[in-house]
Amino acid sequence: MIAYQGEPGAFSEHAAKALFGNSARTKPCESFKEVFDAVSSGRAQRAIVPVENSLFGSVHEVYDLLLAHKLHIVGEVKLRIQLHVMALPGVTMNTVRLIYSHPQALGQCDRFLRSLNGVQAVAYYDTAGSAKMIRREQRHDAAAIASTEAARVYKLHILKKNVESNHRNFTRFLVLARRPVKRNGSMKTSIVFAVKDVPGALFKALAVFALREVNLLKIESRPLVGRPWEYLFYLDFAGSQEDKQVRQALNHLQELSTFIRILGSYPHGRTVSG
Amino acid sequence: MIAYQGEPGAFSEHAAKALFGNSARTKPCESFKEVFDAVSSGRAQRAIVPVENSLFGSVHEVYDLLLAHKLHIVGEVKLRIQLHVMALPGVTMNTVRLIYSHPQALGQCDRFLRSLNGVQAVAYYDTAGSAKMIRREQRHDAAAIASTEAARVYKLHILKKNVESNHRNFTRFLVLARRPVKRNGSMKTSIVFAVKDVPGALFKALAVFALREVNLLKIESRPLVGRPWEYLFYLDFAGSQEDKQVRQALNHLQELSTFIRILGSYPHGRTVSG
Repeated sequence: MIAYQGEPGAFSEHAAKALFGNSARTKPCESFKEVFDAVSSGRAQRAIVPVENSLFGSVHEVYDLLLAHKLHIVGEVKLRIQLHVMALPGVTMNTVRLIYSHPQALGQCDRFLRSLNGVQAVAYYDTAGSAKMIRREQRHDAAAIASTEAARVYKLHILKKNVESNHRNFTRFLVLARRPVKRNGSMKTSIVFAVKDVPGALFKALAVFALREVNLLKIESRPLVGRPWEYLFYLDFAGSQEDKQVRQALNHLQELSTFIRILGSYPHGRTVSG
Repeated sequence: MIAYQGEPGAFSEHAAKALFGNSARTKPCESFKEVFDAVSSGRAQRAIVPVENSLFGSVHEVYDLLLAHKLHIVGEVKLRIQLHVMALPGVTMNTVRLIYSHPQALGQCDRFLRSLNGVQAVAYYDTAGSAKMIRREQRHDAAAIASTEAARVYKLHILKKNVESNHRNFTRFLVLARRPVKRNGSMKTSIVFAVKDVPGALFKALAVFALREVNLLKIESRPLVGRPWEYLFYLDFAGSQEDKQVRQALNHLQELSTFIRILGSYPHGRTVSG
């Protein structure tokens, strides 16, 4: 069972099925917190959560939950986000008065939405949830903006494809579990750490990787609110904790950092179509 | 004249007035692109744009526009984002059936919105714009979620204060102009650069600062979509391009990078209440 935030037909579910196959059992949850709790408590074996988007940056809320829970990252997948307008069979764009979707999806389609006359965009808690509501309530005056997967699940017809303003929109999802994954092909590792506020502290922290030829894949500083000179760093690098040079680098980093948390080592993810 | 995206009463306008005083003349624009064009063409002297949020991370769209235009960052300010429910005088929470706001603001208030029964959240193009619409159309069935500034501008009563789910929500705004600013107190500098994809390349790039004791304030890698091994880096560091060691570090970085763009040197910004 794979927990995800959203309704059946959500992008997270799509990402889960792209990784684990169409027969994988998935568990929709209302919030990210519920997703993390489902795996922590054993009600789900795995979770899939969005962590980074090519237009909006990192999802700090998910990093906060990663730090608050003791789960391991065991995999990743990158999904191209494609958004379509969908409605009940027989409904045309001319008869649509309201378009429902998740606030962020509406934001991603703002150019399309502004081009419409007499159509109101309505924020709904979920993209797939808006498709579900239109099917359940048999709304002939409304459409949803959601994925092809949502159109399939709720038997809606796609009225207009790819209404997202930016077509190079990818979301990276992480797979989480209670236990770490064994080495399996080319691996990467994600950590969060903080360093003392002294000049060159970050440079020294990165030196522990460079000196051992461990290649960095992502780095991001996040200022701690209310503590203007303190930062958390998100770091992804090539290799696994099972590699000798990675273990040595992490031991070395421990000497330099005020806080360090290894989120997991996992195989490099593929990019799949949304 | 200071261009910003949104309607009068928007957080960007609030940030502009916090920096330049309440009598500063501001120019509302529909899109970020229009904001950049207004300054580039000389129709506005300055622009103010959000670049980073403590919950949602960096606004890549603004960085893209910074790279596409030849403007200079000349200042910054950090604004605490506070969101309130507001309506026409006489309207109470019990009579509100619809709540309008910008999709992202609705997302930031999802906990509050889910706690309501029989109230629909409606996505609008702007927080302040939703307050404006309620005043203009004399909507007694609706409320807006926006800033105190919007309540003041459109003469709405605040029905419920601070409905945002996370109260530690700050947005960092940049001030842009056609010409760079002169040194004025403690300065910082923002750059964007790319390095060759060789192991340790980023480490060497950061060495140019560490070797000269230039302190890093923000670092973020952004993968280039479709080019899995290429990255842009956003970097902020202490000091001004007028400083000898900063000039030397930037000359040194030029040797190592495939691309470099200096976005500007500007005074460290204050944090103000939203």
